[in-house]
Amino acid sequence: MRVLVVNPNTTAGMTAKIGAAAKAASSPGTEIIAVNPAMGPASIEGYYDEAFALPGLLQEIAKGEKAGTDGAVIACFDDTGLDAARALATMPVVGICESALAAAGMIATKISVVTTLSRSIVPIEHLVRKYGFAERASVHASEIPVLALEDPKSEASSVLRAAIAAALKSDGSDAVVLGCAGMADLAKALSSEFGVPVIDGVSAGVRMIEALVGLGLKTSKTGAYSAPLHKTYAGLLSPFAPGKIGA
Amino acid sequence: MRVLVVNPNTTAGMTAKIGAAAKAASSPGTEIIAVNPAMGPASIEGYYDEAFALPGLLQEIAKGEKAGTDGAVIACFDDTGLDAARALATMPVVGICESALAAAGMIATKISVVTTLSRSIVPIEHLVRKYGFAERASVHASEIPVLALEDPKSEASSVLRAAIAAALKSDGSDAVVLGCAGMADLAKALSSEFGVPVIDGVSAGVRMIEALVGLGLKTSKTGAYSAPLHKTYAGLLSPFAPGKIGA
Amino acid sequence: MRVLVVNPNTTAGMTAKIGAAAKAASSPGTEIIAVNPAMGPASIEGYYDEAFALPGLLQEIAKGEKAGTDGAVIACFDDTGLDAARALATMPVVGICESALAAAGMIATKISVVTTLSRSIVPIEHLVRKYGFAERASVHASEIPVLALEDPKSEASSVLRAAIAAALKSDGSDAVVLGCAGMADLAKALSSEFGVPVIDGVSAGVRMIEALVGLGLKTSKTGAYSAPLHKTYAGLLSPFAPGKIGA
Amino acid sequence: MRVLVVNPNTTAGMTAKIGAAAKAASSPGTEIIAVNPAMGPASIEGYYDEAFALPGLLQEIAKGEKAGTDGAVIACFDDTGLDAARALATMPVVGICESALAAAGMIATKISVVTTLSRSIVPIEHLVRKYGFAERASVHASEIPVLALEDPKSEASSVLRAAIAAALKSDGSDAVVLGCAGMADLAKALSSEFGVPVIDGVSAGVRMIEALVGLGLKTSKTGAYSAPLHKTYAGLLSPFAPGKIGA
Amino acid sequence: MRVLVVNPNTTAGMTAKIGAAAKAASSPGTEIIAVNPAMGPASIEGYYDEAFALPGLLQEIAKGEKAGTDGAVIACFDDTGLDAARALATMPVVGICESALAAAGMIATKISVVTTLSRSIVPIEHLVRKYGFAERASVHASEIPVLALEDPKSEASSVLRAAIAAALKSDGSDAVVLGCAGMADLAKALSSEFGVPVIDGVSAGVRMIEALVGLGLKTSKTGAYSAPLHKTYAGLLSPFAPGKIGA
Amino acid sequence: MRVLVVNPNTTAGMTAKIGAAAKAASSPGTEIIAVNPAMGPASIEGYYDEAFALPGLLQEIAKGEKAGTDGAVIACFDDTGLDAARALATMPVVGICESALAAAGMIATKISVVTTLSRSIVPIEHLVRKYGFAERASVHASEIPVLALEDPKSEASSVLRAAIAAALKSDGSDAVVLGCAGMADLAKALSSEFGVPVIDGVSAGVRMIEALVGLGLKTSKTGAYSAPLHKTYAGLLSPFAPGKIGA
Repeated sequence: MRVLVVNPNTTAGMTAKIGAAAKAASSPGTEIIAVNPAMGPASIEGYYDEAFALPGLLQEIAKGEKAGTDGAVIACFDDTGLDAARALATMPVVGICESALAAAGMIATKISVVTTLSRSIVPIEHLVRKYGFAERASVHASEIPVLALEDPKSEASSVLRAAIAAALKSDGSDAVVLGCAGMADLAKALSSEFGVPVIDGVSAGVRMIEALVGLGLKTSKTGAYSAPLHKTYAGLLSPFAPGKIGA
Repeated sequence: MRVLVVNPNTTAGMTAKIGAAAKAASSPGTEIIAVNPAMGPASIEGYYDEAFALPGLLQEIAKGEKAGTDGAVIACFDDTGLDAARALATMPVVGICESALAAAGMIATKISVVTTLSRSIVPIEHLVRKYGFAERASVHASEIPVLALEDPKSEASSVLRAAIAAALKSDGSDAVVLGCAGMADLAKALSSEFGVPVIDGVSAGVRMIEALVGLGLKTSKTGAYSAPLHKTYAGLLSPFAPGKIGA
Repeated sequence: MRVLVVNPNTTAGMTAKIGAAAKAASSPGTEIIAVNPAMGPASIEGYYDEAFALPGLLQEIAKGEKAGTDGAVIACFDDTGLDAARALATMPVVGICESALAAAGMIATKISVVTTLSRSIVPIEHLVRKYGFAERASVHASEIPVLALEDPKSEASSVLRAAIAAALKSDGSDAVVLGCAGMADLAKALSSEFGVPVIDGVSAGVRMIEALVGLGLKTSKTGAYSAPLHKTYAGLLSPFAPGKIGA
Repeated sequence: MRVLVVNPNTTAGMTAKIGAAAKAASSPGTEIIAVNPAMGPASIEGYYDEAFALPGLLQEIAKGEKAGTDGAVIACFDDTGLDAARALATMPVVGICESALAAAGMIATKISVVTTLSRSIVPIEHLVRKYGFAERASVHASEIPVLALEDPKSEASSVLRAAIAAALKSDGSDAVVLGCAGMADLAKALSSEFGVPVIDGVSAGVRMIEALVGLGLKTSKTGAYSAPLHKTYAGLLSPFAPGKIGA
Repeated sequence: MRVLVVNPNTTAGMTAKIGAAAKAASSPGTEIIAVNPAMGPASIEGYYDEAFALPGLLQEIAKGEKAGTDGAVIACFDDTGLDAARALATMPVVGICESALAAAGMIATKISVVTTLSRSIVPIEHLVRKYGFAERASVHASEIPVLALEDPKSEASSVLRAAIAAALKSDGSDAVVLGCAGMADLAKALSSEFGVPVIDGVSAGVRMIEALVGLGLKTSKTGAYSAPLHKTYAGLLSPFAPGKIGA
Repeated sequence: MRVLVVNPNTTAGMTAKIGAAAKAASSPGTEIIAVNPAMGPASIEGYYDEAFALPGLLQEIAKGEKAGTDGAVIACFDDTGLDAARALATMPVVGICESALAAAGMIATKISVVTTLSRSIVPIEHLVRKYGFAERASVHASEIPVLALEDPKSEASSVLRAAIAAALKSDGSDAVVLGCAGMADLAKALSSEFGVPVIDGVSAGVRMIEALVGLGLKTSKTGAYSAPLHKTYAGLLSPFAPGKIGA
């Protein structure tokens, strides 16, 4: 099984970390192909960055599908472009927020999501609601910028620990979901430390996509994920028109 | 007052029709500037097209704000990129789905939304829910492609009438919202014909943005609509980085 | 355009303040007619007062419509009698809670409503839910009686400031809605002070009704807002029977 | 135990029927005092009539409480003025919509409410939601005017039967609630005929108020049902000011 | 009228206390038969205990119905086996959580539920949601084990008082529901002490079942509460097969 | 990896079919141990059967965990005893309704669940809501008894096909979930026939539990799934007391 893991930002160091986490979480026999787009933002912090991550992300999905990957994971916690990727692809595609919540919901009753900046709370709350976890999950910000997680000298780790402790207490929750792909390497240590399951979305995403591929499931093409209709895309974006992208 | 109306697809004929509807709906003293991006899809039908409409749309928002417009209307019924546009701009920005629902909700109790293709039902249902109308509004598809609305020889008009009649009956509704900017010219005739308010989002959007501008309100910059953080955007998209876009 | 602004309590000084705020918020060419009933409670604080504000309020709506006003604003934050007024009138009618939330929802993501007495929290929470803002808006009481807002010697202003500061912090909100018509004169100063949009419902109501009138929309008469059926009203209330009221 | 049953409209024949149903449903030892106001609409069909039923209704509640009744039932299916009555009274007060839904919810899983005119659907749906039955109860109109239920020559009964049959089928429900006090005499026969529980709100209201009184419960006076604050009521309505009403 | 009150745990002392509370709450002429199963857990604290309370509970329901009782109350705040009991019985059956919430909802606007251990919060929250009180009721744990309520030397009472005080403050509620049958004897004193209605579910359950029986209502047998289909039950549980249980 | 698949009814033929489906769906290296209890109902159709399936089911979970299985799947579509099993076990446990919905939600937008008897609609709707799919999934009955699915001469297959076709049309859905473990062998053929993903819960459950085990996740023991407290279980059920069960 070949699984594409797309980091939708353009920071290669973060892609490497995500790829390592994905590899560590994968089943024997699964090949992880971790990529990031050549174009777009260095990190995704809020709605604006998300918009400009889409073209590169979708191009990677198209290239992956043409190269014969069996499924894809979008490795940013705002599940960047997930609906568009599903419309584009026939292979199954999952997001890491979606996957982490699905896994957490099967082993715990209340979930604290701890993300980076407070500007991401509302977008993640929209996902929480969309995925059906509004009554079970609360979203908290640690105020750690995404790329500070890549900096070994930052205080990110201790700040994150404090945010998790506060969230567990105020939510009365029995599981934690880490709300950024850049936190993928921290889950196991934090779980030991806090005595509750701490779930990393990259790992969860890899196992969820393996499950869907293993079940022989493909994205449904009769509803809102129907294949894009062929039409003209103008200007700079003409290479991304349906049928042309990834060609 | 100068109001920017952005048709986020690249079909100039549709922009002209939208601009005319916007002008007809505007107050005396309001200048309507109707534009469309130079890049992106010819029509927006589903999640994939929406993703590629964003760069061009946001560029027009940035250019508009730099040129001193007072507010903006995004004239596609999936409210393409509305959250990203609000993060980008300080002027207020509204979507036509949002505006039409807000207006309909003040004159009626139950609302039938009639849109184009069935692949748009789920995305619009997400908006209906996000804007708080899940208990009051139902979404129906007429299966008319967007650009068929631009073709005087199509049967779009009679198909749309049949879809409206069916929706009113099944919903027990007392108002209709037209679910595509390309239907802007039909609202008045349909309202007379069906005996209920029929609301066009382009017109509603113009009046809603006039209201916000008139109130002196600007997009809040302390939460999820905070200004994008300065960072590197790579490759093809580097001109769209925060601080560079629209320059 | 002629806009009727009805203060549904009988305190003339408050009507004057509301009228001034309405005038200040209105577009050029809009005539504001601010009135209050001759009968009913001096202020509306809870369900009981609200019930007795209805006859006088509806009489003013009827008189206004007969006099040819184009639309009406009900200027009490519990949106007193809004549904009954819509059933009575064909002109559009808006409430100030409804209008303030609609405006706030277009420029911010989370809203703190700060009202007067805690007995009004539940009634306003019902409105918040009815208008679709249950996931975005929280209601707080400052414990300032309505008429204390009319008393220049009261400490209302400083108490209100403290309540707003507390609400912004506990809600993580990015906009404030003032939950009483008597706070109409404070919005601009509070917005500067707190660095977030602070929305007054009277102003928002005027601009919303201008929008609806400008769109040529009238209250739908085929559903729950159908015209009252003619029937006998007995005793003291016989002059208010459908067809007689406002005659 | 003395239970006040207030028919909030002014049709004495309907009050008599309601009183008989209340008496038939009451426990041994309960005295039923069935009244209607001297002022207000002959029937309540929609929001406007409801507004003008309030003064008379609340006067009857006040008089009843002063006369020492132990609890009150408001016998109109829109639960006219229930919140205001609770603020006014210390004795417990229930509505017949609320009571019928509470009873139905304890013996069945899905509930079809069948009311009179379609203009009442939305107001009743608001009650259904407020009382927590939005996922379990659907509201249907038979298009029978309220007073036609008082006319032995009308076809009301057969029209109602057809509406019930249709509702049971479309809802997949296992109980019916009759959505008008004027249907109180029909419940037993309809239950036999349809083979499901058919619940009359007047009967349910009497038994619910008996339950509350028997438990020694009184309306809470620390929240939204706090006693009305003393203040001036002007003009025609001055006799209804808190402290004066019912004196 | 004969009312069966089943304490679904096997602690006889608690059954006696529940029976006394039920008797004290009942109407003249109601006979209370308080029982507990001969098999199952000594107390019900969480999902596991609940599962093993079901066989004994359902056997008592079957025996009661065969003995001609008119209705039944399940006297554990997790409403143990309520749906199964309704499928089994034709007499009406109520739970004490359900009954307490129904009563509280008729005299107050916001409800604080205070239960025993925090592991019961989520199960009770599911009931709160199922019964339609999610927007009005919050659940709190006092961390008192169920059987500590039976021990006169424990500090349960003072711990409970502190939990109630904290809940009223944080919820802004105007009523308290005691979340354990073992607290039945405390309601009146706590109500006096806190100045708000404090509702005991056992008492409420007795009065609610009296109401249903008085109305002549029986559990609906056409939907999810249809009588169990006859089939083989194997092994240890064969005596509980439909048609055999209680024989 | 060793995965326990518990058919909670006592029909061995159905266990064999479930075991075969589980084996077919499992990853290389996963050992499937398919069992059913020695006690309890031959099929689970409604709340009553479900109650008596619990002791046997939980005993199998306990025995499985003691024997060192890594995770468990409960193979009945009402997710019989899932919460109790999670409280009992430290290994992760999933239900097939939960798993099927999770998988369906990642490849489609709207889901039709087609189950056996209509008495199961409400229990499954409760699960749908609990798992967060209330806005995306609708439940339909085919009126096929569970054991008819085991009878090669029954017309179950053609009846099921008709029910699926009707559900897809009325729901506008783009995926089908089969609402009974006894339908596990039909998914692939139905998917081909209807051109949409058709998901079998047994298969989905196996892949979901593999995912959780692969992630190293265990059931959280700090909240509602805390280990049962040690206490006396009386009578027939004493061998099932916490600490004794499975010994």
